[in-house]
Amino acid sequence: MKRVVIFGSTGSIGKNALSVIRESRDKFRVIGLCANKDIKTLLSQIKEFRPSFVCIRDEDKAKILRKRLGRGIKFFSGQKGIEDFSSIKSDIAVMAIAGISSLKPLLIAIVNSKRIALANKESIVAAGSLVFKRAERFNTQILPVDSEINALFQLIGPARRSFGIGGARGGRICRDDFRKVYLTASGGALAGYSKSRLAKVGVRKVLDHPTWKMGKRVTVDSATLVNKGFEVIETHYFFGLDYKKIGIVLHKESAIHALLECRDNTLFACLYPPDMKMPISHALCYPQRLDSKKEVNFKSSFSYNFKPLNYKDYPLLKMILEAGKREDNSLVILNAVDEVAIDYFLSKRINFIDIYKVMTYIFRNYKSSKIKRIEDVFFWDDWARKIAKEYLKKV
Amino acid sequence: MKRVVIFGSTGSIGKNALSVIRESRDKFRVIGLCANKDIKTLLSQIKEFRPSFVCIRDEDKAKILRKRLGRGIKFFSGQKGIEDFSSIKSDIAVMAIAGISSLKPLLIAIVNSKRIALANKESIVAAGSLVFKRAERFNTQILPVDSEINALFQLIGPARRSFGIGGARGGRICRDDFRKVYLTASGGALAGYSKSRLAKVGVRKVLDHPTWKMGKRVTVDSATLVNKGFEVIETHYFFGLDYKKIGIVLHKESAIHALLECRDNTLFACLYPPDMKMPISHALCYPQRLDSKKEVNFKSSFSYNFKPLNYKDYPLLKMILEAGKREDNSLVILNAVDEVAIDYFLSKRINFIDIYKVMTYIFRNYKSSKIKRIEDVFFWDDWARKIAKEYLKKV
Repeated sequence: MKRVVIFGSTGSIGKNALSVIRESRDKFRVIGLCANKDIKTLLSQIKEFRPSFVCIRDEDKAKILRKRLGRGIKFFSGQKGIEDFSSIKSDIAVMAIAGISSLKPLLIAIVNSKRIALANKESIVAAGSLVFKRAERFNTQILPVDSEINALFQLIGPARRSFGIGGARGGRICRDDFRKVYLTASGGALAGYSKSRLAKVGVRKVLDHPTWKMGKRVTVDSATLVNKGFEVIETHYFFGLDYKKIGIVLHKESAIHALLECRDNTLFACLYPPDMKMPISHALCYPQRLDSKKEVNFKSSFSYNFKPLNYKDYPLLKMILEAGKREDNSLVILNAVDEVAIDYFLSKRINFIDIYKVMTYIFRNYKSSKIKRIEDVFFWDDWARKIAKEYLKKV
Repeated sequence: MKRVVIFGSTGSIGKNALSVIRESRDKFRVIGLCANKDIKTLLSQIKEFRPSFVCIRDEDKAKILRKRLGRGIKFFSGQKGIEDFSSIKSDIAVMAIAGISSLKPLLIAIVNSKRIALANKESIVAAGSLVFKRAERFNTQILPVDSEINALFQLIGPARRSFGIGGARGGRICRDDFRKVYLTASGGALAGYSKSRLAKVGVRKVLDHPTWKMGKRVTVDSATLVNKGFEVIETHYFFGLDYKKIGIVLHKESAIHALLECRDNTLFACLYPPDMKMPISHALCYPQRLDSKKEVNFKSSFSYNFKPLNYKDYPLLKMILEAGKREDNSLVILNAVDEVAIDYFLSKRINFIDIYKVMTYIFRNYKSSKIKRIEDVFFWDDWARKIAKEYLKKV
């Protein structure tokens, strides 16, 4: 029986994780639930899963919730509460808080959990090197929930002895047997849009992702391919792979999530339906697999399409990759600016094209500096948010 | 430096094997070449690769060849000669003689070679159990050259520790982690043909395979999907898999050769260009891989199409699978009848539809009997050829 704590239990990934656990009550016990402010959903989850620890970030909601909890539940609230909640000893921590605010809880959970099922990209993008160093130090497994990285882990991880590759930094990497990995990209909701059409595109259209149902920020990031850039960064840190060994291929069906290319041109692909329960159940159960009662493959005809990616069509993707190679504070900055800009776009304060503008402006006008400690991440994150807001006010 | 002997060096697989070796002279040394009767090709191969042992089956050609060979080459001829040639000690024997006549050389080579790169299907179809028992006894690796089986080996073999599966009978099979394997089928040259159109189809059309360039018999077998049935039998023996765990899916591009379906519905696929040099180089180099100088993947757009297979459209495939499950002499018989019928069809003595007729007739009128020894294989092979010829004479 694995003890599981879930950070971000009322979000899309959190709900999916609970739905996986619901079907495997003999394998997992939910001991802690942590949410932002959706107390209605959280209350029903508490009723169903009966955790010993509950945490909510929003202090106003905390006041309401506290009164409605039975005895025997240890209750936390606020940012400080989340950090205390992160100290709960567990077998698996599902880390599904959105944004950079998950970084501190993640670093604490790494010390207190045997395994992190990591759905949060931002902490790796902004502080990949710090996160994995810490995981190594405390001998904690980090399993990727992001489907492309999860698929790569499934391709690389289980074959570690043969390929000589350690999944999730679990060992050394033998670079001889494979030449490259490929992440697939659906191309997002705006694939094929011209520049002039992009300028006018509305929120609803951008949020209409063709294959995946996800949170809002990641859906917008999928449209600009910033998300794919972040996945390249994740791949770099998860597998210790050089950036030139990480390719992207357009594949609009999102059926194949990642491919491994051997030096003799043989490819291995990992496929599953575009349903987040797949990578979540893998990250929870690995090295075992959940038994799905329903067979889904090859029941009808289907086509998979592939197209080479033209990097010129995606300037923000190019920018993220360039930032990754710089190995300085630029990823922290771009992540923060992107988050602010998307927030402004979703609340209709700026146009879609302004996301490009503010990112480009700040990437040209930041002071390069190394990220050595966690404090550096928060310093540059704050700085970038301030500059981004100043810039966007003028738009 | 691996010492390699090649059975069937002047055929399609033999030539491809030599072309792989030509590019890896530092890894392989050809010590023996064996051909049927094409002395022109054989002589040029001898000149280039300078083997110590040469064998030709055709006695008339042998007389010509003998005079033209230099000293220092040990020469064999005739059926008896092939058997003696099979006793040469080697690291790898590439077994690419077509038809059941490869069975005896194979059984001898298993004793004398460390590894068999097996391109011949018939010996496994007719005597799979005897072949693999012998390989186990003499601790000889059998690596599949047939692309679908080779792809499966690449999926199952290298991951043996994780999946608990032993590639090529190398260990025990843990049946828990995967539910099924799928072989892909292009559907052959006649995919979608109606019965009336099939009755009239000519030799040229049948030999016009959409994706693979192969020998004549296997190309005709691809049109009837008898070939795919044989591959299911191969899969059964190579991986010790129950027939109900082996599926077929139509995939006209022949890019994905095989898939592994896990019990959580995750699929792993193995892909390479439809070029026999790919599986041959794998079987020669395993567990290493040849370094291909030319990157071929994702240089342009492409589509992969998949269709469920309707077994009703392929009566001979159904028949082969039914024969496999009977575990009696029926596979020996059907293989022999198929070989005779295709021979008659290619020399225009019968129509395409008569292949179906003679197979059906004999499958309804044979006496079931177990195959216990190699002599049983030859007995029923002879019997079936005789009956098939009698039947076809009346057509």
